[in-house]
Amino acid sequence: MTTGFFNGIAPAKYVGDGEGTEFDYRHYNPDEMVMGKRMEDHLRFAVAYWHSFAWEGGDPFGGATFERPWHPQDNQSRAKLKADVAFEMFDIIGQPYYCWHDADVRPEGDTFAQSLRNFEEIIDYFGEKMSSRNIKLLWGTANMFSHRRWMSGASTNPDPDVFAYSAATVKTCMDATQKLGGENYVLWGGREGYETLLNTDMGRELDHMGRFLNMVVEYKHKIGFKGAILVEPKPQEPSKHQYDYDAATCYGFLQKYGLENEVKLNLEQGHAILAGHSFEHEIATAAALGVFGSIDMNRNDYQSGWDTDQFPNNVPEVALAYYHILKAGGFTTGGTNFDAKLRRQSLDAADLIASHTGAMDICARGLKAAAAMIEDGGLENALQERYSGWDDPAAKAMLESDFDSIFDKVNAGEIAPAPRSGKQERLENIVNRFV
Amino acid sequence: MTTGFFNGIAPAKYVGDGEGTEFDYRHYNPDEMVMGKRMEDHLRFAVAYWHSFAWEGGDPFGGATFERPWHPQDNQSRAKLKADVAFEMFDIIGQPYYCWHDADVRPEGDTFAQSLRNFEEIIDYFGEKMSSRNIKLLWGTANMFSHRRWMSGASTNPDPDVFAYSAATVKTCMDATQKLGGENYVLWGGREGYETLLNTDMGRELDHMGRFLNMVVEYKHKIGFKGAILVEPKPQEPSKHQYDYDAATCYGFLQKYGLENEVKLNLEQGHAILAGHSFEHEIATAAALGVFGSIDMNRNDYQSGWDTDQFPNNVPEVALAYYHILKAGGFTTGGTNFDAKLRRQSLDAADLIASHTGAMDICARGLKAAAAMIEDGGLENALQERYSGWDDPAAKAMLESDFDSIFDKVNAGEIAPAPRSGKQERLENIVNRFV
Amino acid sequence: MTTGFFNGIAPAKYVGDGEGTEFDYRHYNPDEMVMGKRMEDHLRFAVAYWHSFAWEGGDPFGGATFERPWHPQDNQSRAKLKADVAFEMFDIIGQPYYCWHDADVRPEGDTFAQSLRNFEEIIDYFGEKMSSRNIKLLWGTANMFSHRRWMSGASTNPDPDVFAYSAATVKTCMDATQKLGGENYVLWGGREGYETLLNTDMGRELDHMGRFLNMVVEYKHKIGFKGAILVEPKPQEPSKHQYDYDAATCYGFLQKYGLENEVKLNLEQGHAILAGHSFEHEIATAAALGVFGSIDMNRNDYQSGWDTDQFPNNVPEVALAYYHILKAGGFTTGGTNFDAKLRRQSLDAADLIASHTGAMDICARGLKAAAAMIEDGGLENALQERYSGWDDPAAKAMLESDFDSIFDKVNAGEIAPAPRSGKQERLENIVNRFV
Amino acid sequence: MTTGFFNGIAPAKYVGDGEGTEFDYRHYNPDEMVMGKRMEDHLRFAVAYWHSFAWEGGDPFGGATFERPWHPQDNQSRAKLKADVAFEMFDIIGQPYYCWHDADVRPEGDTFAQSLRNFEEIIDYFGEKMSSRNIKLLWGTANMFSHRRWMSGASTNPDPDVFAYSAATVKTCMDATQKLGGENYVLWGGREGYETLLNTDMGRELDHMGRFLNMVVEYKHKIGFKGAILVEPKPQEPSKHQYDYDAATCYGFLQKYGLENEVKLNLEQGHAILAGHSFEHEIATAAALGVFGSIDMNRNDYQSGWDTDQFPNNVPEVALAYYHILKAGGFTTGGTNFDAKLRRQSLDAADLIASHTGAMDICARGLKAAAAMIEDGGLENALQERYSGWDDPAAKAMLESDFDSIFDKVNAGEIAPAPRSGKQERLENIVNRFV
Repeated sequence: MTTGFFNGIAPAKYVGDGEGTEFDYRHYNPDEMVMGKRMEDHLRFAVAYWHSFAWEGGDPFGGATFERPWHPQDNQSRAKLKADVAFEMFDIIGQPYYCWHDADVRPEGDTFAQSLRNFEEIIDYFGEKMSSRNIKLLWGTANMFSHRRWMSGASTNPDPDVFAYSAATVKTCMDATQKLGGENYVLWGGREGYETLLNTDMGRELDHMGRFLNMVVEYKHKIGFKGAILVEPKPQEPSKHQYDYDAATCYGFLQKYGLENEVKLNLEQGHAILAGHSFEHEIATAAALGVFGSIDMNRNDYQSGWDTDQFPNNVPEVALAYYHILKAGGFTTGGTNFDAKLRRQSLDAADLIASHTGAMDICARGLKAAAAMIEDGGLENALQERYSGWDDPAAKAMLESDFDSIFDKVNAGEIAPAPRSGKQERLENIVNRFV
Repeated sequence: MTTGFFNGIAPAKYVGDGEGTEFDYRHYNPDEMVMGKRMEDHLRFAVAYWHSFAWEGGDPFGGATFERPWHPQDNQSRAKLKADVAFEMFDIIGQPYYCWHDADVRPEGDTFAQSLRNFEEIIDYFGEKMSSRNIKLLWGTANMFSHRRWMSGASTNPDPDVFAYSAATVKTCMDATQKLGGENYVLWGGREGYETLLNTDMGRELDHMGRFLNMVVEYKHKIGFKGAILVEPKPQEPSKHQYDYDAATCYGFLQKYGLENEVKLNLEQGHAILAGHSFEHEIATAAALGVFGSIDMNRNDYQSGWDTDQFPNNVPEVALAYYHILKAGGFTTGGTNFDAKLRRQSLDAADLIASHTGAMDICARGLKAAAAMIEDGGLENALQERYSGWDDPAAKAMLESDFDSIFDKVNAGEIAPAPRSGKQERLENIVNRFV
Repeated sequence: MTTGFFNGIAPAKYVGDGEGTEFDYRHYNPDEMVMGKRMEDHLRFAVAYWHSFAWEGGDPFGGATFERPWHPQDNQSRAKLKADVAFEMFDIIGQPYYCWHDADVRPEGDTFAQSLRNFEEIIDYFGEKMSSRNIKLLWGTANMFSHRRWMSGASTNPDPDVFAYSAATVKTCMDATQKLGGENYVLWGGREGYETLLNTDMGRELDHMGRFLNMVVEYKHKIGFKGAILVEPKPQEPSKHQYDYDAATCYGFLQKYGLENEVKLNLEQGHAILAGHSFEHEIATAAALGVFGSIDMNRNDYQSGWDTDQFPNNVPEVALAYYHILKAGGFTTGGTNFDAKLRRQSLDAADLIASHTGAMDICARGLKAAAAMIEDGGLENALQERYSGWDDPAAKAMLESDFDSIFDKVNAGEIAPAPRSGKQERLENIVNRFV
Repeated sequence: MTTGFFNGIAPAKYVGDGEGTEFDYRHYNPDEMVMGKRMEDHLRFAVAYWHSFAWEGGDPFGGATFERPWHPQDNQSRAKLKADVAFEMFDIIGQPYYCWHDADVRPEGDTFAQSLRNFEEIIDYFGEKMSSRNIKLLWGTANMFSHRRWMSGASTNPDPDVFAYSAATVKTCMDATQKLGGENYVLWGGREGYETLLNTDMGRELDHMGRFLNMVVEYKHKIGFKGAILVEPKPQEPSKHQYDYDAATCYGFLQKYGLENEVKLNLEQGHAILAGHSFEHEIATAAALGVFGSIDMNRNDYQSGWDTDQFPNNVPEVALAYYHILKAGGFTTGGTNFDAKLRRQSLDAADLIASHTGAMDICARGLKAAAAMIEDGGLENALQERYSGWDDPAAKAMLESDFDSIFDKVNAGEIAPAPRSGKQERLENIVNRFV
């Protein structure tokens, strides 16, 4: 027996160019082989519980618009109804993974212990539902930014009691993630940053955040959690400045606290845009630095200065993201999460389904284009050719030498560089053969 | 005998509230004691040779506007005329330092060797001028972005010949800096980045840049240069993306290549703005990470998305910058350089003088306000009070403990955080008592 | 008998350089004469009921933080408590004006009629409070963006029922504004715009918005409302694009619908920043186009891409705003409203007072500096001198002539323009003598 | 006999899915019918003489990179060589139109008269070349921003002599445009704006610019020029603020000076982005306001804050632009100009060809997708359905009524709006069926 929320929408199936409903897949074909691997295993799609089921449609200028039967989310029976609907959606969409924060799935209790009991009951409820389905947990995480106790940060809070509360919270979320067989554990520090430097001791806060993340890693090893620990960069919002600004900043932070081999990154397209980067930049940066983990494939509106968390809809952009992921070897524990929310005017159950299936088709197209670019080899060949001078033993030797010896050759006129075309437009044309 | 370029503008002197010319100082009083140190020794002002004397007033949509007598800058006699005028300006302004790139001061030769001969002749000419004046070199640097050979980068160029040419160039600039007693050597990687990832091997380029910077440090030690090596962060322009994006990114880079104790940062207000930060953020970040070095005190227009390099004119902003510099202990080898250019409509010699003396007065006001905030202590007291919970031994012990032990206390209800006001507006009011 | 909310904070008084509490005024001295007018009459300060009393401290990533005794705002007795506290704050601050939206002051009813009864009761309650105090209504306005019925716009809604509901709502707010002697009526179209062009008929929506605004003006004349009708530009947020983007866009809209002589603009610093302008740009634009009305003096954080609505804290910026207001003749019906909200971590009643009194002091300093710049005359003289060529009768005659006659003179070599310095830095130095 | 510059690159031909060179068209098929019109007649491609032939590859941080045989551009023989190469490129690409500024095509003379003689000689040279080819002039324009005489504006210059020089210049360019059968005349006011309000009388400058544009229209009628007069919006750069900020701002300006029926807009994707808009927003706005004219289809990098003028490479974005153009009835006198420049590292002649042919293929794909969306009708049907309530006579009557009569119905409870889904994601899915 179903909740009836999706009232008659049938499970989405791959139809390719054939006839199908609005919700069927034209491109996402889980079993199709791409570069020797099933498409599903490449993309590893996940639905975000938070945006799709807990968010009520409010924004800074207006209240809830969605009015779901499980709103307001203040008791366990509505929390279970929400779970019922969520898994019904997973059955329709057929994606292999989902993700949650603790606060999405259970009502807040009057005490920590009560919140925990609520949480554990729902986690067990999830466990039952997962046992009868082909659905896994990509990652769990703790929401340590919504409740007012976290208004000044979690691990970076000036109040040590909040640090303690945060530590206890993450422990319970890591426990639940492990219990459900989650493949990663994510930390996003929404308020790990500042509103004004006037009331902030940045050095102290960074040290506390570094110690906290070390505790996470210590706890992971203690409980034998096999998944990856992921940090999610974002430059700002809700904080004016967040310490996990972007991939390069996170890498510096991980090194400072000795964690660059223990922690990887969960990168989001929208966060990349807000930080002034392209998504492929963040992926390529994390890959170059050895900390690429997983992605949130939700875009930001280019004309909005806040986090719009929209479903992806631009194939060429998505293709470049997967091109860099494939070049980095593809996902291991990571996957493609949609940390995306419906527009607040998209009130219907059909909007919830179509937004996900449309996004999955976009990603499937992007993946196939990326694979085709790799198999074509034109881009990679051009790249190798451009740097081929460095394959010369003399060039390698130069890197091991010093300024004086290099100077002698240059001053003697032995070296006179001749600029060569960077061919950007021609390379862009190659990309456009495939997207 | 003077060039007559500044035709009758007398040396600027401190007049305070008294009568004075448009060019005299109302606030900059070199010998005035501020927190136990002469104002001049706090601020350590430097003039940038490049913008003030070499730039001709062009922009992407138009050509030269300035038409100085030493333009075009293609022979040594005009290079010497330029130097004559520059030192005449230093005599008028009375700042203690200046800075140069090699390409600002000498004409490009047909060969490296010829360029070097031109350069060395001018450096000697500078040396003579400095010997009779109270003017020192804050830093030297190499321009490795203007000539077309560097269009695809210097140390990160796909062509090893360009790496070689860059190494030889930096050697000569470090030699010249040392010869003139320079107190720092700066590297700004204007084209150390990329235009498109399609033709870029980011990992390889970062490794080359890391090796290059190690060569710089090795050479510094070899020649016994006592000054600091400084890297200058900037997010973009001319490159679409520059590897030295901001302070936090540079810190990660320095750690990766083992340089975090050898290299510090030269921070620029305009670059901070382009990277999405406030200037005080970059200063506080560098200070927290132990890599604060020097500053370029030139602002960016908040409504323009490119590098406008304007002289500072907002006292409250400047005061916050110096507040964080004073909190970090003030400058050691660093100083306040104006990497600022006149607006291209500011054609007159008087504009060149007034822009500098006005900026120095702004900075003097900022410094005095910053010192007053520190001496008042209200901001620092509020900060200490906010974090006072962490002075509790139990809080410190918690940092050394683990998730399980913290969890037990939280779950037992022993810890229930109570939010306290962040008092941002009240702290801003304190600042406004002093600026 | 008071509510006790402000627990002992005494009315703020002007103390100048003398001793005073944190809340007293150092610069705002209502009776001080500035350019022949009382400072209070220049500045015409207003408090915004919405941000200061109705906003609960939530943001897109977190819930309420403030927990005022009148929250949640769902019944009339709490609405009256809120009003009691508000007027107690007005008594402490001593500003001459306040502003409201209907939805700030009354609980939403189950029907329009019920909401209206709630509203009218509170308006009467306000009227009583105003009768015993020196406090006036600067403007009233309707909140037509928070309730879900307005999620797709008010007058631009695709559903004519929403247009109707909006018309009825504005009528009641105009009635209430008139009843309380309000000096202006403001329309801010928070959702008069679009999320996506895919579901938007822009031409139709503009026509509906134009007709709606004409109805407002017709109703104003019908009821004999003597105040000004003001439209408030904002580029985006909550909508991705708002039709009232900025001052220039609004002016085009007003002309298209024949309203340029009936409607003026309420300009906000934060909205100017979001639109890519400086605040003084928007003021100067409105003044040049003859539609300057009133201001919201709340700043936007330069590093945040959303509407931060912070209290002003930068005197030089505020001074330039008032400089252009004074040049335009100063306020007539308009004033200086603080459409500003506390940071959500600023939990205390003292924060509410200090934020306002600090802002008023900033504005007072800005006004005095602006007046001094005008009285000095240096800026205006330089401006007149720069355009003095146009005072030549030949120049004026040229404007009345045609291309052929001008061409003849130019081609004959009679006219050869010689660039003159724009003197920007020297003018900025003049400003810095006064701020 | 050819110049040999394009050394063996054969004319690009349409090959579709067949074999072809890197330069052949896969999508642009001039004679293919799209919605009943030849593709060539829909797209009306034009090459910009300026970027492709006159620009030398400099940027604010570096000098020329291209080193074409016709650089430096200081005599007539090199100007003719440049023209020879340009028309050879037109022969290869096969686009139907091109565009120029006066300053692109001729060397600057010592006097106006000399510049004019140079210009007229080249225009005649162009005329000869055009007479033997299928190439037409889409538009001509005057460069009134590069030479230092225009550093403070053209028609808005504080110096009336510059206004005169500008008037004479535009006259000669309109004459030349007419002589060559140009279909439009464009004005882009690169320095018609300001650097600082401190030295700017905005009202006066707007009046001068309004008068100047009226003179343009008067001259058009006098000489019987049948083409359209187009103004090109841009928010900033080179000026800090340009008066022709965006489409809506230009419309307000045109109305103020009585020109809204005489002048239309030339919209550029990159300028839209810099103004905070999408390109389709600017097109839809101009269409809604009745002033849509022509486009410059060159994109801006989303992460760069200056005008990057890149060739288009994102089909979904291009498709949405053409969708709105087709909805507005398609081009009349306008067309698709590439005001795009090679990246400065793209040194080769092959880059110049491939950038244009790749861009034309992108546009052809966009056009075909746009036509398919229109022929499908799904988007338009959804739009009509969304606004269908307004087709009700009662709704239309309401627009003619007044607040009182509407209020009576709403207050009586006859109207209670029920929100309906905006369906954004489902509409985006429809778009993605076609792009």
